[in-house]
Amino acid sequence: MLVLLKPGTPEAAASDVMTRLRMAGLAVHRTDHDGRIRVAAVGDTGAVDWTEVATWPGVESTHKLPRPFKLASRAFRPHDTIVQVGRCGIGGRQLAIMAGPCSVEGEAQAFAIAEAVARSGATVLRGGAYKPRTSPYAFQGLGEEGLKILRRAADAHGLAVVSEVMDTQQVPLLARYADILQIGARNMQNYSLLREVGHASRPVMIKRGLSSTIEEWLLSAEHVMAQGNQQVILCERGIRTFETYTRNTLDLNAVPVVKELSHLPVLVDPSHGTGIRDKVAPMARAAIAAGADGLIIEVHNDPEHALSDGPQSLWPGQFDELVGQIRTIAEVLGRSV
Amino acid sequence: MLVLLKPGTPEAAASDVMTRLRMAGLAVHRTDHDGRIRVAAVGDTGAVDWTEVATWPGVESTHKLPRPFKLASRAFRPHDTIVQVGRCGIGGRQLAIMAGPCSVEGEAQAFAIAEAVARSGATVLRGGAYKPRTSPYAFQGLGEEGLKILRRAADAHGLAVVSEVMDTQQVPLLARYADILQIGARNMQNYSLLREVGHASRPVMIKRGLSSTIEEWLLSAEHVMAQGNQQVILCERGIRTFETYTRNTLDLNAVPVVKELSHLPVLVDPSHGTGIRDKVAPMARAAIAAGADGLIIEVHNDPEHALSDGPQSLWPGQFDELVGQIRTIAEVLGRSV
Amino acid sequence: MLVLLKPGTPEAAASDVMTRLRMAGLAVHRTDHDGRIRVAAVGDTGAVDWTEVATWPGVESTHKLPRPFKLASRAFRPHDTIVQVGRCGIGGRQLAIMAGPCSVEGEAQAFAIAEAVARSGATVLRGGAYKPRTSPYAFQGLGEEGLKILRRAADAHGLAVVSEVMDTQQVPLLARYADILQIGARNMQNYSLLREVGHASRPVMIKRGLSSTIEEWLLSAEHVMAQGNQQVILCERGIRTFETYTRNTLDLNAVPVVKELSHLPVLVDPSHGTGIRDKVAPMARAAIAAGADGLIIEVHNDPEHALSDGPQSLWPGQFDELVGQIRTIAEVLGRSV
Amino acid sequence: MLVLLKPGTPEAAASDVMTRLRMAGLAVHRTDHDGRIRVAAVGDTGAVDWTEVATWPGVESTHKLPRPFKLASRAFRPHDTIVQVGRCGIGGRQLAIMAGPCSVEGEAQAFAIAEAVARSGATVLRGGAYKPRTSPYAFQGLGEEGLKILRRAADAHGLAVVSEVMDTQQVPLLARYADILQIGARNMQNYSLLREVGHASRPVMIKRGLSSTIEEWLLSAEHVMAQGNQQVILCERGIRTFETYTRNTLDLNAVPVVKELSHLPVLVDPSHGTGIRDKVAPMARAAIAAGADGLIIEVHNDPEHALSDGPQSLWPGQFDELVGQIRTIAEVLGRSV
Repeated sequence: MLVLLKPGTPEAAASDVMTRLRMAGLAVHRTDHDGRIRVAAVGDTGAVDWTEVATWPGVESTHKLPRPFKLASRAFRPHDTIVQVGRCGIGGRQLAIMAGPCSVEGEAQAFAIAEAVARSGATVLRGGAYKPRTSPYAFQGLGEEGLKILRRAADAHGLAVVSEVMDTQQVPLLARYADILQIGARNMQNYSLLREVGHASRPVMIKRGLSSTIEEWLLSAEHVMAQGNQQVILCERGIRTFETYTRNTLDLNAVPVVKELSHLPVLVDPSHGTGIRDKVAPMARAAIAAGADGLIIEVHNDPEHALSDGPQSLWPGQFDELVGQIRTIAEVLGRSV
Repeated sequence: MLVLLKPGTPEAAASDVMTRLRMAGLAVHRTDHDGRIRVAAVGDTGAVDWTEVATWPGVESTHKLPRPFKLASRAFRPHDTIVQVGRCGIGGRQLAIMAGPCSVEGEAQAFAIAEAVARSGATVLRGGAYKPRTSPYAFQGLGEEGLKILRRAADAHGLAVVSEVMDTQQVPLLARYADILQIGARNMQNYSLLREVGHASRPVMIKRGLSSTIEEWLLSAEHVMAQGNQQVILCERGIRTFETYTRNTLDLNAVPVVKELSHLPVLVDPSHGTGIRDKVAPMARAAIAAGADGLIIEVHNDPEHALSDGPQSLWPGQFDELVGQIRTIAEVLGRSV
Repeated sequence: MLVLLKPGTPEAAASDVMTRLRMAGLAVHRTDHDGRIRVAAVGDTGAVDWTEVATWPGVESTHKLPRPFKLASRAFRPHDTIVQVGRCGIGGRQLAIMAGPCSVEGEAQAFAIAEAVARSGATVLRGGAYKPRTSPYAFQGLGEEGLKILRRAADAHGLAVVSEVMDTQQVPLLARYADILQIGARNMQNYSLLREVGHASRPVMIKRGLSSTIEEWLLSAEHVMAQGNQQVILCERGIRTFETYTRNTLDLNAVPVVKELSHLPVLVDPSHGTGIRDKVAPMARAAIAAGADGLIIEVHNDPEHALSDGPQSLWPGQFDELVGQIRTIAEVLGRSV
Repeated sequence: MLVLLKPGTPEAAASDVMTRLRMAGLAVHRTDHDGRIRVAAVGDTGAVDWTEVATWPGVESTHKLPRPFKLASRAFRPHDTIVQVGRCGIGGRQLAIMAGPCSVEGEAQAFAIAEAVARSGATVLRGGAYKPRTSPYAFQGLGEEGLKILRRAADAHGLAVVSEVMDTQQVPLLARYADILQIGARNMQNYSLLREVGHASRPVMIKRGLSSTIEEWLLSAEHVMAQGNQQVILCERGIRTFETYTRNTLDLNAVPVVKELSHLPVLVDPSHGTGIRDKVAPMARAAIAAGADGLIIEVHNDPEHALSDGPQSLWPGQFDELVGQIRTIAEVLGRSV
């Protein structure tokens, strides 16, 4: 339920409303918009008499939140969430450009790529240290050693770090090295993991599952937010369809749909969304034109010898040219890189 | 098979090569590129000794065309096909903007919309006179009366006409009123119809079937081209996936993929691709940013009372604003409206 | 709308009701069930005052038919439709077993296969004379010559004939040689063709489109039935999904769903549904266990050299063994071969 | 790589071969078939000279295992794996019938259902104590209390227990109460969890992910087996397609495909595969007719008031009738209940 307080309700009265809702067994979340306090009360709302709540001091009205996701909905928080990470407010006017290798493979590689992408305009360095691999016999990542390298390479070039966490027990480790905890597509409905990062003090980026509806994706965000962590970023990375020419089908429809349904920022990953190097730039441009809040792109200084995802990684020069094109398209939408 | 002739091969020699291939039972198609004649020989190519063909006068080399579509492949025709329709060369530098109502509903409606879209920059008027409707009890279109209205409205505003043909027997009628014959998504694999429009003297626009792979779509183009009609335009209009929030999933990946595989122009229909009015403009911008050669958009002067597809039709004012945005994005790609 | 007449309403009164509904501009269809006449009135039902109709002599009650398909719905016709073809009542107690080659390739082949499948228990001979081929360069079928062969082979072994019609202009030709007109999956939404076979005097078998929902499939049946031809058979033949190991994903869920929603018989085609010879028998058994009214199976006397679909065609011996297994499973469901 | 030893190779020589492969850095697994030892060596096989291995004492030949899954492949282990659980050898002649409520809701419910399903012929009691729920606000299961109830109810009626484990940290707890650890569809690619159950001493049942290909599913089995746990059961439970009438599309094609590719047992879950009570029995019958090794079915003594999945749960009487039908179909395939 959404409880709207009257404009100018004193903090003490607002606090009373929230306490009484908590006493009714509900979890309570607050946001401020247009000079008005908005309270979302979630849990077993059927046990409360909402017409009575509407008569409480300070309460203007109560509304059913129509969708299954509550805290993630724009109905609860009408203004865009901006997730502050390093120099970049993700979801704000400036587009978030995240770039880097699929996997961290070593010091030289990481530093070379970090330098290149920072120079082109990226603000976040991506790189996998723990890799979810379909085959148990494929390269599984460098682990903590990889995280250390990633951190040092990012710091050397003023970048923030995003990296994937695969297991509840890894969360503290990842939180030590990374600025953003990434939930991979295969773990989008790993609810134990979502709950765990919901207690972390780091922003969380949730990639859309290969066959997840937009509603299920927002419900995964809700799993995190319901634990208290409101710093959630969404990332479209392609869905699975019958088409096999591209690795996945990048669903850019999802961008304007998420912007309508939710206040959370939404990025696009054209590298996994297409799986083909020369399709990355067209789809990156398209993503920004569709209204995405940023991009996450695989860049490698030597794609031919990458240990994973080489065929979809851009060369640094290609990435640089792409950021230039993005800059102009961003202006059409009143945004910047 | 692709037979490359030597630069400067005289016409007479080229003609001999083509005659001999025809005598071997093959259908022969020719294109000129880079000062060189290229001949595609299709049919039962297994019966011919291609090492011998390579020794014929004027022949430089022979190559297997690797994909099942031959005439539609960029391997056969490396340069972009430009389909000239009215003022617009579709597939050239200038983007093709097609707009109009889902169905022609009457004189006043058609003229009002034609005037509006022409003023905003459209060069082709779209409008259905024969409608493929899922239910036999839904409005089936005005028929020939609708075509006459469409033609008059287009002529009054200097526009070309595109309209759907649903049956082999309708082809002459449509060809009388429309400049472009549209094959709808549901008929993309109606091979009798494809063969019939392959003999028409009008360009053909083939919408991608809801569950068609890109290869099957190009093979449908091949069905038309194999009959002699090389003026084929492709149109991505959304595929069917598990996602239900949008009517279809607009597959913009298909744009750069088609541009790689084929020389044919490819347009995008964001109206059917999303099915939701306020998602049309973002996806139209995205389509152009991804490299599409143009757009086909449903515009209605009174969407609330449209007989079909009202919820996805733009108001004329929205269309005008969209064309303005498209203009700037087009420049990033060296194109114009 | 469904208009239920009272038990024992005289024919004259029933006739009056139907005439008055026709005068209101509606198309009227009648069925008898449980000693009561049921009338479906379709078209622009919004213009009629149905509470008044409920007071007409003989009328017991009026009901909105809840689904978009009306004549195909079980709500209109509660009892199973049985389509009588040759010796077999399709949809009745006896399962319909249709078998034969993908394409008719010649006299010897057709007669050999017809003899084999008849001996094993088939009652209908299948075989394509006009083939919808994805590539314009593939074998397109023997045409009328193929139909003649098919007819002779069937007659020699007491079988009925089912064959595909691809175009409105072919309908009279097919109706001359075949007992059942097949609408292929690619033409399931070719509404011109559906209307045309709706006027034919032959039963029509509609294969489900690769990406058609069950509702759309039943609406295609409705297109035929709305023209007056109530002899419609449905055939599930696999849908398109992300899984690529099998050619298609045979959706056996559709069998009990269709049986709930509609009174029309539903067959299953495990040959196209799997595309792999040794998967045909397991899925054929499964189809019958799920409640299908019959099977259509590709059988070839020399699959290795078949001009189309060899890899999914059964050898006659395999088909014979399969029919034996089907016989026992059928008994579990109170049916026979 | 598959290393085939000669018939009659002494254990000592076999042991030498395996040791030398381990010294080359490979993981080594052994199976015996047809009086011959078969060794699968997995890992970085590229570093080994396999023509030399072929000359080692006792080695008959070496073969590349063609598919990405090795231990799960029938090429490695030609004979069916039988997983012994309680009274039932899953994968053997006797079909495995697992049944029970979606969630454990209390003592009375669990005992009543256990009694009913045991009487009808089930050998394994299913029931969720930890539930993966799309919404964070839905019933999440009774936790350990639920497991205790489940265990007691199963023991009282001579049944084994299968229950879902959702997180690496839960594995020891689940292993204490359950005989089979279930990996849910949403966690099919949670590789941390797969590795963890790979070290457990309990059989593991892996449900197919909603959009997983059969190959990915078998690779998830491989993740478990590569850790040493060979007791893996597969369970098809429906995939996600465009069809929305049923909750999922039960892919019975997968049954014969898995039986060809792998030696692992494969069960079918028609409750989740359809999501509709009256579709469960037809699809259960179909699954057995297609060759499945068993079923897992939701049964509830009061489906109308079930805390989850009520609409797809069978009444005990319906389950009993179904098992009777299964018994007859099983006989067609030389199996029993």
